[in-house]
Amino acid sequence: MSIKQKEKIQQLEKINKLLRYWILDMTTTAGSGHPTSSLSAVEIMSSLMFSGVFKFDIKNIRDENNDRLIFSKGHASPLFYSLWTAAGAVKPEELNTFRKFGSNLEGHPTMKFPFTEASTGSLGQGLSVGVGMALAQKKIDKSIAKTYVLLGDSEMAEGQVWEAMNLASYYELGNLIAVVDVNRLGQRGETMDGHDVDKYVARAKAFGWRSVVVDGHDVDEILRVYKDMIGEHKKPLMIIAKTYKGRGISFLEDKYSWHGKVLKEEEFIEAVNELGDIDFDVRGSIALPQPCQSRDGKYLSSDASIVLQKDSCLRRNDNSVGSEFNIDEKYATRDAYGDALVEMMSEDEKIIVLDAEVSNSTRSEKVKAYYPERFFEMFIAEQNMVSVAVGLSRMGYKPFCSTFAAFFTRAHDQIRMARLSESNITFVGSHAGVSIGADGSSQMGLSDIAMMRSIIDGKVLYPSDIISAKFLIKNCGEGINYIRTTREKTSVLYGKKDEFKIGDSKILKGSDEDIAVIIAAGITITEALKAYEILKVKNKSIRIIDLYCVKPINGKSLIKNIGDIKNIIVVEDGYSEGGMYEAVRSALDGFNGNISSLSVKRIPQSGTTEELLKYEEIDFNAIIKSIEENN
Amino acid sequence: MSIKQKEKIQQLEKINKLLRYWILDMTTTAGSGHPTSSLSAVEIMSSLMFSGVFKFDIKNIRDENNDRLIFSKGHASPLFYSLWTAAGAVKPEELNTFRKFGSNLEGHPTMKFPFTEASTGSLGQGLSVGVGMALAQKKIDKSIAKTYVLLGDSEMAEGQVWEAMNLASYYELGNLIAVVDVNRLGQRGETMDGHDVDKYVARAKAFGWRSVVVDGHDVDEILRVYKDMIGEHKKPLMIIAKTYKGRGISFLEDKYSWHGKVLKEEEFIEAVNELGDIDFDVRGSIALPQPCQSRDGKYLSSDASIVLQKDSCLRRNDNSVGSEFNIDEKYATRDAYGDALVEMMSEDEKIIVLDAEVSNSTRSEKVKAYYPERFFEMFIAEQNMVSVAVGLSRMGYKPFCSTFAAFFTRAHDQIRMARLSESNITFVGSHAGVSIGADGSSQMGLSDIAMMRSIIDGKVLYPSDIISAKFLIKNCGEGINYIRTTREKTSVLYGKKDEFKIGDSKILKGSDEDIAVIIAAGITITEALKAYEILKVKNKSIRIIDLYCVKPINGKSLIKNIGDIKNIIVVEDGYSEGGMYEAVRSALDGFNGNISSLSVKRIPQSGTTEELLKYEEIDFNAIIKSIEENN
Repeated sequence: MSIKQKEKIQQLEKINKLLRYWILDMTTTAGSGHPTSSLSAVEIMSSLMFSGVFKFDIKNIRDENNDRLIFSKGHASPLFYSLWTAAGAVKPEELNTFRKFGSNLEGHPTMKFPFTEASTGSLGQGLSVGVGMALAQKKIDKSIAKTYVLLGDSEMAEGQVWEAMNLASYYELGNLIAVVDVNRLGQRGETMDGHDVDKYVARAKAFGWRSVVVDGHDVDEILRVYKDMIGEHKKPLMIIAKTYKGRGISFLEDKYSWHGKVLKEEEFIEAVNELGDIDFDVRGSIALPQPCQSRDGKYLSSDASIVLQKDSCLRRNDNSVGSEFNIDEKYATRDAYGDALVEMMSEDEKIIVLDAEVSNSTRSEKVKAYYPERFFEMFIAEQNMVSVAVGLSRMGYKPFCSTFAAFFTRAHDQIRMARLSESNITFVGSHAGVSIGADGSSQMGLSDIAMMRSIIDGKVLYPSDIISAKFLIKNCGEGINYIRTTREKTSVLYGKKDEFKIGDSKILKGSDEDIAVIIAAGITITEALKAYEILKVKNKSIRIIDLYCVKPINGKSLIKNIGDIKNIIVVEDGYSEGGMYEAVRSALDGFNGNISSLSVKRIPQSGTTEELLKYEEIDFNAIIKSIEENN
Repeated sequence: MSIKQKEKIQQLEKINKLLRYWILDMTTTAGSGHPTSSLSAVEIMSSLMFSGVFKFDIKNIRDENNDRLIFSKGHASPLFYSLWTAAGAVKPEELNTFRKFGSNLEGHPTMKFPFTEASTGSLGQGLSVGVGMALAQKKIDKSIAKTYVLLGDSEMAEGQVWEAMNLASYYELGNLIAVVDVNRLGQRGETMDGHDVDKYVARAKAFGWRSVVVDGHDVDEILRVYKDMIGEHKKPLMIIAKTYKGRGISFLEDKYSWHGKVLKEEEFIEAVNELGDIDFDVRGSIALPQPCQSRDGKYLSSDASIVLQKDSCLRRNDNSVGSEFNIDEKYATRDAYGDALVEMMSEDEKIIVLDAEVSNSTRSEKVKAYYPERFFEMFIAEQNMVSVAVGLSRMGYKPFCSTFAAFFTRAHDQIRMARLSESNITFVGSHAGVSIGADGSSQMGLSDIAMMRSIIDGKVLYPSDIISAKFLIKNCGEGINYIRTTREKTSVLYGKKDEFKIGDSKILKGSDEDIAVIIAAGITITEALKAYEILKVKNKSIRIIDLYCVKPINGKSLIKNIGDIKNIIVVEDGYSEGGMYEAVRSALDGFNGNISSLSVKRIPQSGTTEELLKYEEIDFNAIIKSIEENN
């Protein structure tokens, strides 16, 4: 070993001791947290950060040349915060605020802490976020920056990790490096594979990754592996670090029942005594990225279909695409999606399109003909798709994700975490409701509105015709948006100059004689219009309100549209629990009238659209019956 | 090849021709469906079913000695129905009803068809259901029956498949056989791995499975593989069948753009001509299971910790367990879970407990000391856990699944499908709400009530003290139940003889002088009680209703409890969208008063329980403020 290398290791060992001290100190001060899960990863993370491997400008956090570091095992937050403290980016005093109300140092990393790349804590999501970031770096930014993800061994049981593994090798993300902290012990005992590190290696290799085992507490070995293995490759790299939970403190190391437990004051003193002399002034320095080496594209895959032809986007502006409608024709709102995307992408090169292997159904496939370099096939792996979108969003892109409305429920947890990562993502769920017909119940999105309404500040948009669909897709803005589209073709209801304000609704039919108000959206608008025509013949007039925006609902505006009418019927192709009915009732707080619900109440089955709408009593007949009963 | 073998193959080829005819006929008649995805799996499935490998008594469908066959690729339903028709279990005329309203032959298999083991159609779930069934067969029933699962290659991208793979090898489910129909083409083009069958083998082996490649259209080879590979083993078996989508019809075979498309009448005629002579009378016979060989236990794993000591359960009846409470002490409702389980398990040997590696937190770990053979660790893989529970339920067991409330959102799609499979499962979500404190937003279940309320006929129970918690867990009954438990300790509110009827609520405090009604549950009951005491000093009396049953709500009973009071405040530790507030508003349809909401409206953070309840304005102060503002 060279003297320089020896000094480097000695310096890292000093830092590691301080990191251990801080980890124990902050968790004991907080009275909760995960010290032992942090201690196992000290060497592998400090060696990454302070040896020149990891490149990051702490003064320019969002610089696209920075490497990215995600703690997928978010409960190792004491180590995460300590590392940035050792880097000089955080004052040591701040560690005392750990887990306290108002602190930026929360129990699991959140966006309040400036160096958090994405909120973690729901395990098994970090690698997918890393795939999104590595994809942005390699395929879009054409930077040589890398993305590092620290994973726990327990979370390797989450299927999403393997979805991410699959996709990373498919897109040849050699700039993605996963480090698995195999400390053997999960929350309540040994993990499925314990210390069988070879098993991890075999699995990683079978999924198309390079993989290597390292003694996760041997700094010299770790440095050598980082030096030898990290570079320009087509295959992503998984480093399997054999470690011990609670490492460095005799009564914690490799011991059961210490998960998520902190030391009492006297145990803390004993532990600190074990650590010996601590240099409280030691700091590590993170190497700066080399911007001059970025954007040259020389390391890019030669596969043209998945490489962004940068700057090509603006050349393809084609405003005529799909913008002509024949008002006598019928169109499915899902068709608006492809058209809207192509138009938007000509103006905004930050838009990236992801789809879970159903692009011909969701209509996102239209993008492939115009901007193939900004369409990424995610295959049938919805959870990974959503977290990849989080990664892209955190890198400054605006991902649009599509699959069947039903299958977004698969990624409920990931959508929840996307919000906590302050992502800007638009989700487009096609094939909503029983109206899809013969495919049957498994394919019908019925609880999607309830799920998406539970996202704080999220928008839920449910257009009824192709014009409003296109408008809403193009104007939904930032944050978490959900657009619910319909498989069936519906009539054109609006003119090209109509605008659809978020929070509002529109009166489609109405007069001073109206005896009831039908609040509908999507396919149920068609049924309401049928009911309107039939009742008209009977000299009964009803008002139809298109609730294209299910969240937020401006209650005042809706009440204005309702006017003096006291008989309100909400008709929806989905469940009323958390759906349109409950949204309307909440928005009409204080409304003095009758609000009734027509919604999906029976387990649906295969059949035609008409049969199923009838079976669920959400068709025009049910609307007429409900009006006649209530008047 | 022996003459007998030759005859067997000739017979199978005849059946295969008829299966192909039926597949094309029923889909063309229906006008929709997936003929090409069915054609690829004809040989591998008919060879399984009609060669004596698969054992099943079609007259005793639920016989525990029967093998089980799950079509995880549910869109291959035309093949599935045709196979049972060829087995003589369905009349060929019934195939003409395929996908029609009222038919048992739905677009994707549902429970209406008697031979469906579990509803499929949301891809990637069938193998997990199979794990549940194989677990029941091998570890509980001690039968020698086997479970077969047909998977599509596209769905191998779903992470849940790898969760199931992991668990199957961990529990040594050598009685589980997966057949992957690698037909190369997904919905919109080639799958991630195309025809690279070796990749599939490598992955299966890395996950601890035996694996072999077979030419999926060579009946002789398929029969040999089934004969050689299926038997008594510790490792599960994955057969990788290299096939062609649309096999047998020249203009469909291995062709793009035929996914989910049916033949037009003239194309159908052309295809049938290609098939040549069809023997419409040919039928296959399924071998009967051999009950005499079952239950001998000789093939069981020697690992005592995971093998059911059958009949041992009843011997351990211990009614005293945890049944003593000190009414001056506080208890967390989650603690009731372990106690209730142990008591119930002493009386009902069908109860099986699953947990996603947090049993010390959810308290299901208590079971391990009493009934270790009926507790199965599911590790951190919530999706797989839920679908395994579906498999167990379909085998006649009553699974109880637990994890953090937040992490059940990961399995929203699987819970949705569990309902479609008519499962009896109780889900217990601990650590609900912001009241968990310092761990922060990622760990807080806030949209779980909305998600679980969207399950048709599902029950959502949210007890406030240990007595009601225990009662509800023990008396929630069949179907899909959700019990929301709390991490924090709360006071004992009820007596041991109190009963908690599903649909009802209880008045905890109340008088004729009440000026407002607080509807709360779980932790917010504690806050309401604090508010009550403070207001009492001010000579203001309020009513507190414990809404322990959030779904269903008997509106009449709730109105009775509310009485004449017009000022209602619903206080919940979660989102109001789809939550308690909206549930109450829906139940109080027609109620003439003011219903306001105190719920989680801001992104939560780390802090103490008190700080977070205050921050979200769902604590006693917020309750008092709301009452004073509204009166």
